[in-house]
Amino acid sequence: MPSDTPQPSFVLVRPQMGENIGAAARAMWNFGLDRMRLVAPRDGWPNPRAVAMASGAGRLLDEAQLCETTAEAIGDATLVLATTARPRGLTKPVYSPERAMQLAAERISVGERVAILFGPERAGLENDDIARANGIISVPVNPEFASLNLAQCVLLLGYEWRRAREEINHEVTELAGAGWAEAIEIEKLGDQYEERLETAGFFFPETKAHGMKTNLRNLWSRMPLTRADVQMLHGVMRQMVRWKERGE
Amino acid sequence: MPSDTPQPSFVLVRPQMGENIGAAARAMWNFGLDRMRLVAPRDGWPNPRAVAMASGAGRLLDEAQLCETTAEAIGDATLVLATTARPRGLTKPVYSPERAMQLAAERISVGERVAILFGPERAGLENDDIARANGIISVPVNPEFASLNLAQCVLLLGYEWRRAREEINHEVTELAGAGWAEAIEIEKLGDQYEERLETAGFFFPETKAHGMKTNLRNLWSRMPLTRADVQMLHGVMRQMVRWKERGE
Repeated sequence: MPSDTPQPSFVLVRPQMGENIGAAARAMWNFGLDRMRLVAPRDGWPNPRAVAMASGAGRLLDEAQLCETTAEAIGDATLVLATTARPRGLTKPVYSPERAMQLAAERISVGERVAILFGPERAGLENDDIARANGIISVPVNPEFASLNLAQCVLLLGYEWRRAREEINHEVTELAGAGWAEAIEIEKLGDQYEERLETAGFFFPETKAHGMKTNLRNLWSRMPLTRADVQMLHGVMRQMVRWKERGE
Repeated sequence: MPSDTPQPSFVLVRPQMGENIGAAARAMWNFGLDRMRLVAPRDGWPNPRAVAMASGAGRLLDEAQLCETTAEAIGDATLVLATTARPRGLTKPVYSPERAMQLAAERISVGERVAILFGPERAGLENDDIARANGIISVPVNPEFASLNLAQCVLLLGYEWRRAREEINHEVTELAGAGWAEAIEIEKLGDQYEERLETAGFFFPETKAHGMKTNLRNLWSRMPLTRADVQMLHGVMRQMVRWKERGE
């Protein structure tokens, strides 16, 4: 059974190669999408090449809805968007993938059904299909080289769906074991280095000593140091002192 | 020669299959990126399978910088970001693809050099590579199925680079030939329909006639009609009148 998560259907219209259908299934499932519809696949259905390619996402193929026409595949949708690589001479709103998936997410959140159309590999959707869509999705590719294949197009739309739907953490810091050091620990680290380096004759000449100390304090405090980092840095200095005290 | 457009380098670290290097080149060039660096590709370099796969983006392979170590490949960069699929037990900022490429675009706009690291197909980057990076990029995939391949990962980062760099038109309407109709044309269309439908006895019963007329006017004005649409709708009504006048 497809997941309960409300989501758009991805409709592959007259896809040619089974491999591409399988790769599209994988691309969808990478972003948690599992409602595929197929309109008149060229080599019939089911297709063993699709299954071989879909490894890990084969369930999407088993559950795919097979339709004879585009009209049948989109019959229950209240918003239909068609992906195209080139202008079609049809008056129609053209959305970026980002805006299209925001729109899809808004509509789906109020209980509507959304279908996204993807054309056959070689020629893309026919105008007859596009005339049935409420809008067009155009991926902003390099005009000198626009060669997205079917599964890549599915991947980008799936990615934008996930972006539109989820709170993405744009920036977090992975903390390995230890938490962040507190200011008092940084202070003590600074103290240790300053004291030991004083003994070692680092702050020379006298006229520059104060500036050097300030810079060293500043170096520690602008680093995002964990407790483990602080321990490591204490260890470094301790070791240098031990090595000196051992004598050569 | 690579293009003059300031951009990040995409560094493929120890890539295995030539086909994947070729597919990565295509994915890059789809979004206008053409600075590839290769660290110790498994099957040597140049690689005829990479060339066969890269069709249309072969120039990127010819111009790719071949390096022996990751350290060499990122030597000139002031910001290094590493793509990884899983946490690594290293304390490091983790960025979404979107935030990572915004950061890259900011740094590049002030003349810095940015490198993005991609790991080998099977195992991904080693911690030894990641320890050299300033941050990690994590694609928000389905935790139940995270199976992005090398070229797909390159594709998503290329896409985000283009989004970060360019003014994308999020919504435009493609106009086929005719421009938008002016209000006076919509008004006259409304007049024609109202007049003809009046003759045909459409506005019945009398008590509802005014409301029906208002709704019909409203229907026309909330449609985004072009001049060609207006002509078509005039033609539809004209034809019905002709057909009636011919008699059966």
